[in-house]
Amino acid sequence: MKIGMIGLGKMGGNMAARLLQGGQDVVGFDLFPANVELVKERGAAGAPTLDDLVAQLPAPRAVWVMVPSGAATESTVQDLASRLEPGDTIIDGGNSNYKDSQRRARELAERGIHFVDVGTSGGIWGLQEGYAMMIGGDAGAIERLRPIFETLAPAPDKGWGRMGPSGSGHYVKMVHNGIEYGMMQAYAEGFELMHAKTDLQLDMAQIAELWRHGSVVRSWLLDLTAEALKGDAEFSDLSDYVADSGEGRWTVLDTLEVGVPAPVITLAVQMRLRSQQEVSYAGKMLSAMRRAFGGHAVKKLDAPAQERTVEEIKPHQAPEAALDPNASGAAPVSVGEEARQLGETGKTRKPE
Amino acid sequence: MKIGMIGLGKMGGNMAARLLQGGQDVVGFDLFPANVELVKERGAAGAPTLDDLVAQLPAPRAVWVMVPSGAATESTVQDLASRLEPGDTIIDGGNSNYKDSQRRARELAERGIHFVDVGTSGGIWGLQEGYAMMIGGDAGAIERLRPIFETLAPAPDKGWGRMGPSGSGHYVKMVHNGIEYGMMQAYAEGFELMHAKTDLQLDMAQIAELWRHGSVVRSWLLDLTAEALKGDAEFSDLSDYVADSGEGRWTVLDTLEVGVPAPVITLAVQMRLRSQQEVSYAGKMLSAMRRAFGGHAVKKLDAPAQERTVEEIKPHQAPEAALDPNASGAAPVSVGEEARQLGETGKTRKPE
Amino acid sequence: MKIGMIGLGKMGGNMAARLLQGGQDVVGFDLFPANVELVKERGAAGAPTLDDLVAQLPAPRAVWVMVPSGAATESTVQDLASRLEPGDTIIDGGNSNYKDSQRRARELAERGIHFVDVGTSGGIWGLQEGYAMMIGGDAGAIERLRPIFETLAPAPDKGWGRMGPSGSGHYVKMVHNGIEYGMMQAYAEGFELMHAKTDLQLDMAQIAELWRHGSVVRSWLLDLTAEALKGDAEFSDLSDYVADSGEGRWTVLDTLEVGVPAPVITLAVQMRLRSQQEVSYAGKMLSAMRRAFGGHAVKKLDAPAQERTVEEIKPHQAPEAALDPNASGAAPVSVGEEARQLGETGKTRKPE
Amino acid sequence: MKIGMIGLGKMGGNMAARLLQGGQDVVGFDLFPANVELVKERGAAGAPTLDDLVAQLPAPRAVWVMVPSGAATESTVQDLASRLEPGDTIIDGGNSNYKDSQRRARELAERGIHFVDVGTSGGIWGLQEGYAMMIGGDAGAIERLRPIFETLAPAPDKGWGRMGPSGSGHYVKMVHNGIEYGMMQAYAEGFELMHAKTDLQLDMAQIAELWRHGSVVRSWLLDLTAEALKGDAEFSDLSDYVADSGEGRWTVLDTLEVGVPAPVITLAVQMRLRSQQEVSYAGKMLSAMRRAFGGHAVKKLDAPAQERTVEEIKPHQAPEAALDPNASGAAPVSVGEEARQLGETGKTRKPE
Repeated sequence: MKIGMIGLGKMGGNMAARLLQGGQDVVGFDLFPANVELVKERGAAGAPTLDDLVAQLPAPRAVWVMVPSGAATESTVQDLASRLEPGDTIIDGGNSNYKDSQRRARELAERGIHFVDVGTSGGIWGLQEGYAMMIGGDAGAIERLRPIFETLAPAPDKGWGRMGPSGSGHYVKMVHNGIEYGMMQAYAEGFELMHAKTDLQLDMAQIAELWRHGSVVRSWLLDLTAEALKGDAEFSDLSDYVADSGEGRWTVLDTLEVGVPAPVITLAVQMRLRSQQEVSYAGKMLSAMRRAFGGHAVKKLDAPAQERTVEEIKPHQAPEAALDPNASGAAPVSVGEEARQLGETGKTRKPE
Repeated sequence: MKIGMIGLGKMGGNMAARLLQGGQDVVGFDLFPANVELVKERGAAGAPTLDDLVAQLPAPRAVWVMVPSGAATESTVQDLASRLEPGDTIIDGGNSNYKDSQRRARELAERGIHFVDVGTSGGIWGLQEGYAMMIGGDAGAIERLRPIFETLAPAPDKGWGRMGPSGSGHYVKMVHNGIEYGMMQAYAEGFELMHAKTDLQLDMAQIAELWRHGSVVRSWLLDLTAEALKGDAEFSDLSDYVADSGEGRWTVLDTLEVGVPAPVITLAVQMRLRSQQEVSYAGKMLSAMRRAFGGHAVKKLDAPAQERTVEEIKPHQAPEAALDPNASGAAPVSVGEEARQLGETGKTRKPE
Repeated sequence: MKIGMIGLGKMGGNMAARLLQGGQDVVGFDLFPANVELVKERGAAGAPTLDDLVAQLPAPRAVWVMVPSGAATESTVQDLASRLEPGDTIIDGGNSNYKDSQRRARELAERGIHFVDVGTSGGIWGLQEGYAMMIGGDAGAIERLRPIFETLAPAPDKGWGRMGPSGSGHYVKMVHNGIEYGMMQAYAEGFELMHAKTDLQLDMAQIAELWRHGSVVRSWLLDLTAEALKGDAEFSDLSDYVADSGEGRWTVLDTLEVGVPAPVITLAVQMRLRSQQEVSYAGKMLSAMRRAFGGHAVKKLDAPAQERTVEEIKPHQAPEAALDPNASGAAPVSVGEEARQLGETGKTRKPE
Repeated sequence: MKIGMIGLGKMGGNMAARLLQGGQDVVGFDLFPANVELVKERGAAGAPTLDDLVAQLPAPRAVWVMVPSGAATESTVQDLASRLEPGDTIIDGGNSNYKDSQRRARELAERGIHFVDVGTSGGIWGLQEGYAMMIGGDAGAIERLRPIFETLAPAPDKGWGRMGPSGSGHYVKMVHNGIEYGMMQAYAEGFELMHAKTDLQLDMAQIAELWRHGSVVRSWLLDLTAEALKGDAEFSDLSDYVADSGEGRWTVLDTLEVGVPAPVITLAVQMRLRSQQEVSYAGKMLSAMRRAFGGHAVKKLDAPAQERTVEEIKPHQAPEAALDPNASGAAPVSVGEEARQLGETGKTRKPE
């Protein structure tokens, strides 16, 4: 099957590569021509413009959009829709908010264009291990894309499926990420405790490796953690700043809308927000309050922590490269680009 | 290697079976003669008394204790120690508090008896998949038990290891369980949210199965959850009472002693405590406060929820039997026995 | 000063009364004629229709809207706006979402009508103790309402003020309620712990009263709690269902938008959501998981808890009447009316 | 009544002063002779040694111990007990763990010495406003101390009382402090949110002052916070390090022992622990995990924050002096002394 792919970064570029390896035809477009060249080397056709990409696809067309959620996805879908015809299909494989996907599906339906929302999981390992795909939208439109899903998935009959109507793909992916936040935080808390239990002299790397076999907490996240710990288990160079990419917050928002408690997912998100604060105003106020009623000593701040950023992994780069937690290569990037690379929704470390 | 095994319930009985399958010799003892008969059928020698068990073992002896933590373990270790000789080794494979293990190691060392604490993970699936074992104690004593660990583990070189001095095995297992609580709660919250999102009509069983392949949240716990969901995904018969077995609370206690934050593990434990309350006094007080300042309506309680207990899985019973979440067979059991089976530290549902 | 007052329930009715006591003129309107009669007895003019209310007010008019937030406020503001003239002012003293207030201010400004958002605190005690008012909007419009604010406040120069532009009044009130949730939960948890510490035989009423004098935790909420505890400190009749009225959830939503952690306010909200669940799906799934890997016993549910509702306090009713936590008078009310009285955003106890 | 007072720091020194003002006789002892001189100036008798203090008191003696909890209290009680006679009474007014108080009461009872545990609240304001006292122990022994309690309390019949048997005074005070942690965190979170909502340009000092009058969240803590905000509402100089003094952690420990959930109190404690971390290992691991599966950018740490300590308020110093949150006077103090002044149980900021 022939499909257009817009956005050829570390997710889209790798997905194009997996499709090509699986015998599918891909026409690729990216704002950075270098990314187009990378997929052309792997057998894709390249398109210098959106018009050209649309022209290269046989009707009914299928175009997979894999760009940052929010403004980039919105403008891409709009630009694309104005060039497509009734019967064509736009697939959004990014991390869009499910309410945006529900709206886009309604708007595109008015023009006769199908919209399929795909929550895609697998990260930089998807190229070799396959991607989990949670899919929302019209059953017929999804069925026509079967060759694509069967190729991207870990196996033709595993790791993908239609969840329900439009938006449900991104919804289930959102909850997936909320759970992921909770699991990650659970591991991190456990290892932090063992690391701080200095009198037992525990070996973090050994424990992670041991737990991978036979324990109740074995998981793919633990596999990766065990690998990352094999290098410098102290993470000597790393800051404790933890970015968040939006889905965790959205999950919490949705629990409040629906009215169910989700303290673990929520706290996992909030501890990331806490890590993003340079200095907490709440903390300063609490110190002031303690002094006000108890006359306790307090600490003054002479200088905040100093940090810099290590760039994200490049498309087609071997995922093992990401396993070195203290990777070198801190580079000056613009604030907006830094936020994108950290996987955030446009927030930078707050001054307060 | 020949080893004594005291406690032949669903954990000890299955471990004896795995040892026998792996070519080791086992002498089994249990307060319930029926459990002894079960391991004899699988090739173990049985011992009618502790004296007899000790007599059947060649010096230096190795005896594995696999009984409920707390009073049962304490008395078993004492009774055993009085019958052993310098150079013998007692292994505690249960869920003992690591501080008890540190104390027992000290006390036994004074008599020249080795004490090895083994945090054992794997549950009722360990018989077929092997057990993860986190081991604390003297390196030489542990080395002499190598055939035992190599047989119980998922593979001779995987899933077991010496963590450090006495107590460190149970310590790492305690943290393991704390993490497990956090992970379980993360999954449960995510599924609860999707379940409550009724307008999307999501299929819990389909989602769990999909996530097993290629997603970031894939894990063994998810494998089991997916299986359990294949039956009645509504868990129609189940109460929402969630027992806790002590290690979660101990993990939180330890974070407070050490002084590190662990909100996710803590909340996972506290939500279980909340589920164990029949009626929350805090909730009643909050309603009273809302009425006191805002004059709001409040709810009155006419009758609390009614529940009964489904017994635990039996030793050697196929673990798949546990995957039916609405298993029948609610049976009248004594309060203490019910607490033991629920895996608790002796607590029953509080009247308030 | 002469002001129109729409909505004469337990909040609006009492505010009208305080205005009248303070020498202001009030024209009252309510969907329930009985409520209009109540304020007429206290010296207000009554209006049978909105048209009539508007006709009775001298230009530039000032109309205070005190109806449930959401649909009721929206339609009231719209209906009113269509009857007002440029230069008139609408005051929303209810618990509206600040984003709605920002929008309403913009929409009304296009017609030349001022919009003033007032976050009002004080509950049923405001009539005798005065109301705290956090005010947002145009400074000039607020200044013209000075006699009203000075009369409603605890003292002319205390407990009211302009916070900033439109929406800021409701914003600060929203955060106020978030803090209130956290404080209430802190007290409730402390008392729950002491109540459960049965071996010390502590007296909840004595403790609350003692803490009112000289302790660090003394507060108005504690004053009310101490009063409520003087009756039946067991709250024997009360359910532990705790309603929430929206602002707590909104506060959490806003922390996620702004990106600051607020675990205590969040958990206070989530524990209310937990109390509103009849049976937790998460809890059932956790039990199923424990059985699946550990073969533990589980509890089955034979019947959920049975409850009914005690109606809210009536306007002008002495607030002391609310201090009896086990107030009798459970009455059959419609689901929507029950939700309104519980102070919720339209949610009822979820079946799952 | 004549009473001995051991420990004349900012708590004990002020209590001695209040007793003297109220017509009681005090014999004071402190390791620092300067503190003894301070109370002598106010009319107390001074004792150069414990022996001398005991000699100056008529039998049956009453000695109030007001020294840091833990080792200092333990040794003081032991030293004192060896000098007292049957019928004498030791009062521990510090923040001891209630289990220690239960043990001390048992041990002293064997010698015929009464032990009264008094949880004392009021901080540096107690001298002028009176202290709240939660008292545990033998009813007769407490009754004999009535003149002391009536003088120290805000009023003879307010703010003090016998809670129950030995330990119950310190138990109720422990829970009091747990609630205090929750309330403080609730305020701090609310103000942090409003502070971060920069587009509304809210005035923290104005809001705190407004809320003091008529709002539901009015409290003594808010009174102090409003005062502290009147100076530099940015707390420009303060670090966000928040010490904890033990009772909060003990409260959480006790909820786990008793088995009741207390998420708000717990999180309040944990956010303090988080603030005490220089760099969080959990945070570093989470960043490493994100990079491992998603190839995201991460932050590196070049230098941690730099801080110093402002000393605690001195005994008899006007409490208003504590209301300047950015008080100058950072002084070099020893690590142990710094920990004591911060009000901690001997912990310093952890290197990791």
